[in-house]
This record gives sequence, C-alpha cells and structure tokens, in this order.
Amino acid sequence: MSGSLMRAEMAEQPAVLARLAERFDEDVARVRAVVPRPLAGVVFVARGSSDNAAVYGRYLAELAAGRPAGLAAPSLHTLYHAPVDASGYLVVALSQSGATPEILTVCERLRAAGARSVAIVNDEDAPLARCTDTLLALGAGPERAVPATKTVTAQLLAAAVVAAALGPVPFTAEDLRALPRAVGAVLADPAPAEALAALWAPAGRLVVAARGLLYAAALEAALKITETTGVLAEGLSTADLRHGPIAAVDRDVPALLLDGGGPGAPDVRELADQLRERGAPVAVCGTGDTDALDLPAATPEALAVVIATVRAQQLALALAGARGRDADAPPGLSKVTVTE
Amino acid sequence: MSGSLMRAEMAEQPAVLARLAERFDEDVARVRAVVPRPLAGVVFVARGSSDNAAVYGRYLAELAAGRPAGLAAPSLHTLYHAPVDASGYLVVALSQSGATPEILTVCERLRAAGARSVAIVNDEDAPLARCTDTLLALGAGPERAVPATKTVTAQLLAAAVVAAALGPVPFTAEDLRALPRAVGAVLADPAPAEALAALWAPAGRLVVAARGLLYAAALEAALKITETTGVLAEGLSTADLRHGPIAAVDRDVPALLLDGGGPGAPDVRELADQLRERGAPVAVCGTGDTDALDLPAATPEALAVVIATVRAQQLALALAGARGRDADAPPGLSKVTVTE
Repeated sequence: MSGSLMRAEMAEQPAVLARLAERFDEDVARVRAVVPRPLAGVVFVARGSSDNAAVYGRYLAELAAGRPAGLAAPSLHTLYHAPVDASGYLVVALSQSGATPEILTVCERLRAAGARSVAIVNDEDAPLARCTDTLLALGAGPERAVPATKTVTAQLLAAAVVAAALGPVPFTAEDLRALPRAVGAVLADPAPAEALAALWAPAGRLVVAARGLLYAAALEAALKITETTGVLAEGLSTADLRHGPIAAVDRDVPALLLDGGGPGAPDVRELADQLRERGAPVAVCGTGDTDALDLPAATPEALAVVIATVRAQQLALALAGARGRDADAPPGLSKVTVTE
Repeated sequence: MSGSLMRAEMAEQPAVLARLAERFDEDVARVRAVVPRPLAGVVFVARGSSDNAAVYGRYLAELAAGRPAGLAAPSLHTLYHAPVDASGYLVVALSQSGATPEILTVCERLRAAGARSVAIVNDEDAPLARCTDTLLALGAGPERAVPATKTVTAQLLAAAVVAAALGPVPFTAEDLRALPRAVGAVLADPAPAEALAALWAPAGRLVVAARGLLYAAALEAALKITETTGVLAEGLSTADLRHGPIAAVDRDVPALLLDGGGPGAPDVRELADQLRERGAPVAVCGTGDTDALDLPAATPEALAVVIATVRAQQLALALAGARGRDADAPPGLSKVTVTE
C-alpha cells in the first residue's frame, strides 16, 4: 500500500519519544560534561530534515545558553577548506544515518580546530559516532521510508537535550512525560489532515509559515510535503514571508500557518488574516477552536514543535495519497544523500 | 512604463559600486577599529533582501576571520526576550531603510549585552545609525522601486568590507576596481535574461540553486523573482536541493543554477545534468560558452556574487514584464516592512 512504510514509522513515534523522555536527564548530564566553559557559541551541523531539527536546536540552545547559536555552512569546510579556530564552541552534528560525508567532515574539522562535539545519530555504531566527544543515539530503529519521520521528532527531542545541557529550557519534566501520549492522540486523529489534503490536492505549490520555536516545524512541514507529494512547498518565518514572498501568495497558493501558542501567536494570526484577504486558502495548525489542524492546548510551545511536525507528516502522507504518489519512495531520492 | 523605476535604479549600480570601491580601504579601517579582540564570533542581523546580503557576509566573514559567523534569529530577542551574553561578538546589522523595528531591537539588545556593532544602511541619518559603534552608509540615493536592487549590490560590497576588516578576502584591489565596469557590461546586455523570461513566463514556480559564496545570490534571485513576478521561486543550496526538494522538480519547474567558478562549480554542473535528466528546464548563469546567462570569466567568485545578482535582477524584471506585472509595485508589499 502506498505510503505504508511511512505510516508505520510515524506510528512508532510515541514509543520512540517515550524512551527518549525516560532517559532525558541522563542524556543531559552526558552532554553537559562536554560543554566548553566559558562557552563562545554553539554551531549545529546538518542537512535535510536533520537541518530542520537543527534550526529548532539553534533557537532553544541560544535561549538556554544565553550565548549565540547558529548553523554551520558546510561548504566553507568541504569546498573552501576555511581555516577556523573553533575553541570555546560546542558543535552539534545531526545525521540520521551518521554517514553523510559532509557532516562528518565538518564535525571532524571543527573538533580539530578546538570545538567539543555532540553527535545525534540513529544508531550508536554510525560513522559519526567515532569522531565525537559524546553521542546521543536515538535508537528509533531502522527507518526505511525515504521521508524521515520518527527520526526527526526524535532529533527534536535530542536537540532539546542539548539545550537543557546548556541552561534552563521552557518545559517541565511533566510536560516531557505527557508528550508521547499527546503525539499518540494526534496520530489517532488523521481525519483533519485528510480533509485538508482533499482540498489542497490540486495545488502545485504552497507555503508554510511560523514564527519563533515553531519556525523549524514550518521548514520541516514544507520539506516533508515537497519530498512526498511533488508539491513545491516553501517554509518561511512569518517575518520573511512579509518581506517579499507574500507578493506571490494568492488564491492558487495554499498557506499553512503553525501557531504553537508562543509569543509569536498574534503575528501568525494577523498574517493568516492578511493571506485570507489576498484570497489564499489558509489553514492554521494550532489550539484555536476553528483551526484546521488541532494542537493540544496543554503542550508548551517548546514541545508543540514535535506535535506540529507530526501534523505535517499526516498532511504530507494524505496529500501524497490524494495526488497518487507513493510517499515511501519519492522519485529521485534515496535514504542516504551523499553530499560532500 | 512598467518596471521603469526598477530599471533606472539597476542602471545606477556601476556608479554606486564605483564610489564604494573607491572608499573600500577607508571603510575597512573604520570597521577594523571596532572589531572585538579576541573575537568570539560574528552575527549578522537582517530581513528580506538585506538578509541575502547577510548570508554572503556570513560566508565571507567566517572565511576571513577564521571564527564562526552566523545569522541572528530576531524573534529570540523581539518575542522571547532571550537573555544573552554577546561579549566578544561583532554584530553586523543590515537594513536599507535602517528603520525596521526588529533589526533596531536586536542590534540594541546585542550591543547592550557586550557586542560591538557595525550598521550597514543606505542613509547616514537612518535610525539604526544612532545605535551602532560604526556605520557604513551606502549612499546609493533614494530607492523608490519596491524590489531593492542598487542597495542590495551595495550591501554585498559593504559585507565584503566587514569581512576584509576581519582578515584576508579572496579578491584583490584590482578585482574590486574592475567590478563596476563588469556590472555595466552586464547591464548593457539584457537580451539573454529577456530570452529566458520569454521561455519561463508560463511557470508558476521555479528554483534557484548555487553552492558556497553564490548561495546568497541564489536566495536573492529567488526573492527578487518572487516579489516582482508572482512566480513562487525558492532559493536553495545545491546540497539542500538534493536532500529532498529535488523530488518536486520536474518539467513544470524551471531551475536556474548559478556557477561563479568557485570550488562548488563541479557540484553545480552535476546538479544541472541531474535536473535535465528529470526533464526540468535548466538555465545556468556562469562563465561557460553555452550558459544562458553570462558571467565574466575574469571576476573572482567572491565578486561574481554581485554580477550574478544583477543577472537575476534582469531576469526578474523581464519575467515581470512577460507576465504583465509592474515590477515597481508588487501587490501587497511596501518599501519599509514593519516586522517586530
């Protein structure tokens, strides 16, 4: 059945997240032991879906550490061989396979330049595990569908581990324990995504926007939709959308807006109204009574990013079905992308 | 005439760039005087087209400084009020108007947290000029078309000033002096962009990709096309395109690839072949004999980013004309975008 691998792997998420939530404090301690003091900054290194988890990590790490965090530009290392002094930096390398050559190269170069590193991979015997100061192995089990699902939500939680090792994070242990059940409840409720997919199936392009901590979920939603459905979806911050691309959003371009209930909520809602005025089909994923895709109101924004990502997976899977695509094996993609 | 403001402002670029090239060393000295030593890192703050110039600055600054550089996440400051210690950081704030509230807020907060700052604005009496350690005023004259052109190429050169204040940059004083004339030659040759626009006018979406230093030009090309023509264009690194979005590129999605002759060139050329195999209409902007949009072979990659940006302006203007849009005043946009 089309998309059956992706659906099965999505269904494993509550169990994967529950295991990670259980060992959260232990993982935090392991990362804390390698954090350089004083800390100059934090650099995340990733590509594809892992890069979207890295964007979340970058926000939460800067909030927690109180020092700037950012994303590496891999080509500076792999192509330009930039000389760099990375002393005082914590490098966070994310790769599902732990085998993407450029991620390995960047991580090795930054460590050689004085950084301490943590690698977030699925299996503890991945190549990346051999060249890092400490390791967070997700243990999500083999992922066979090309679109990453269970490893992405696991990476989001692992990124939160890194942030928690750097300083205070905006969720409690109780919030964390409640997350797997909340994800399970969303997975048991695919109908809203299917209804939206039926409406949006004819569109060739769409935009996904959010602000703040859910920006990463907007990027991941766009990537998941693009790779599984052939719709060209672009993920944007609501601010970036206003700085130009809004000019291309009209009745032919559906817009999905994510509102995790954080301080960006008024901005997201205002943009939703603006886009509706432009005639665009707009759907909000949030906690409002009339939102097309529901988020549980009890989940704090910093964990709602996981649930919004699951909602986006449901939409991508349903849209692929509605457009006659096999979500498990998109044309032109393979599971490990060998960029250098 | 439709797009006449944009065309006139594009034509001013050789003169604007010549003035900046003439005062390059003086500007470098002014920035060098405020760089913190030791340097922890560099953070660029911008939105919209300025953010694309910031991406270029981020690459070149890291290459020159040998310390990590990155882009600020403004919402961490404007919405989450993140406590941050920015000591040891150089903050580079880019804003054409120098009046975007969130750019002002982030720059002020990071300075208050210990950073030194340089502001890159068009006019020296912009609000941003009042809260910075030093100022690079582009002096490009009023920009009235909504799509920024002459201020963007000027920002690229100002970003190069910042990099040169941090360390060695990959171009010579002679290369710099030759740039305005090379831009003039490209501006005198709009026919290739017009021919491409005639071919691509029916497309509703498009991708622009590059690797390394020209990645910023790909982002700017996509933004310029999106805001002036209503085509939803996405700018990507060639590596990111391979990690998923390539699945949505087919005969309905034209792809523009930028090749500035740097170390990413083989990767760009290989991707061009892959996309052609998928049936996508592909055009390369580069120095090859058969490239649709020509770049001068004598310009080093670090300055070719300016010329590729001008080629993209020509394509955006021509596509707007071919699609019956007034490039000067896209629907839904105003010259100063008030994001907070």
